[in-house]
Amino acid sequence: MTNGYLISFEGGEGAGKTVQIKRLRDKLTENGFDVLVVREPGGTVISEQIREILLSAKNVGIAYTTEVLLFQSARAQVYRELVLPSLEAKKIVLMDRTRDSSVVYQGMVRGFGVDVIEELNNISTRETYPDLTFLLDVPVEIGLARRAQTDKMDRLDMEAKEFHEKVRAAYLKVAKKNDHGRWHLVDASKTIDEIFEEIWQTVSKTLL
Amino acid sequence: MTNGYLISFEGGEGAGKTVQIKRLRDKLTENGFDVLVVREPGGTVISEQIREILLSAKNVGIAYTTEVLLFQSARAQVYRELVLPSLEAKKIVLMDRTRDSSVVYQGMVRGFGVDVIEELNNISTRETYPDLTFLLDVPVEIGLARRAQTDKMDRLDMEAKEFHEKVRAAYLKVAKKNDHGRWHLVDASKTIDEIFEEIWQTVSKTLL
Repeated sequence: MTNGYLISFEGGEGAGKTVQIKRLRDKLTENGFDVLVVREPGGTVISEQIREILLSAKNVGIAYTTEVLLFQSARAQVYRELVLPSLEAKKIVLMDRTRDSSVVYQGMVRGFGVDVIEELNNISTRETYPDLTFLLDVPVEIGLARRAQTDKMDRLDMEAKEFHEKVRAAYLKVAKKNDHGRWHLVDASKTIDEIFEEIWQTVSKTLL
Repeated sequence: MTNGYLISFEGGEGAGKTVQIKRLRDKLTENGFDVLVVREPGGTVISEQIREILLSAKNVGIAYTTEVLLFQSARAQVYRELVLPSLEAKKIVLMDRTRDSSVVYQGMVRGFGVDVIEELNNISTRETYPDLTFLLDVPVEIGLARRAQTDKMDRLDMEAKEFHEKVRAAYLKVAKKNDHGRWHLVDASKTIDEIFEEIWQTVSKTLL
């Protein structure tokens, strides 16, 4: 490798991204790689301040466009301070969601528009795309049940379900389009071990 | 008028924007108009928090792209919370700098690119352009001297002078292009009274 390698994990709630990222980090580290895990928008002094604005209860009046731009501001800082320098230093960077989450949640599900979000993504990431993107796809019921650690769903969960179905459909559409040939669809209703096996097959083929 | 009216004031340091805006506000108010003066990025709870991030001394590591996006985040909030509702309520909005300042300072002088900045401007303003833009143009020496209240310039001022010359040239270029036919070039080396007379001629012709 003349350069680092960027792997992103995408998918809805309860797909198991976090646990798979931890496993992959450990496995890559064992194999001698220098690995950085990044989860936006946190991680830098400046992006944390932006995150505070996004989360603060007093900011109920925040406009949706402001939100979209603040997310991208934080992304710009995280890429310039962490992601891009790490890739230049030939590290492996594992990201728990990145540009495609904005495309799916804001661009598609909330209807802000994919083209606008991708334009902003290109500004904030300096036109950086992951080398490899795993979509951990799981039926919504399973994902939400994992999240709640229960199978019971109340009315609010059912409303949420519709939203999560849209998210899932949007992700599958993006993965099918497979821009830059970087998408790998993983059936995340399998066990943690089975999922990791599939991820490791793909990663090791490229990196080992 | 079926709608409000947006007037922006642009120009370098010491051109006298603030004093002219005050005069115009007073004159319009006398004539029965409902007037709002806006100066970005301040004015809303959320944009003030964004401003704090931009100004905080601890944020020396802020990336330039982050800065550009934060300015636009604040602009998005100011437009949605103040500018656009005021225009819908048929008010006259006077802005002390807005989208064209980003085009000139960030897009042209600092080289971020005019097209990118205009894309961001269109997102943050919901494609709102001023109905009228006054460029208060003044030779750099005069502008800086007004600012400093002195004619003496030291070495740092001379370096700054080069920067301000670039700003002036960029503004003149934009005004000459006269996109949307909204630009009015005003010779701001004249007296305050003379300048205001010219501004009022133009404004009253449209609004009275």
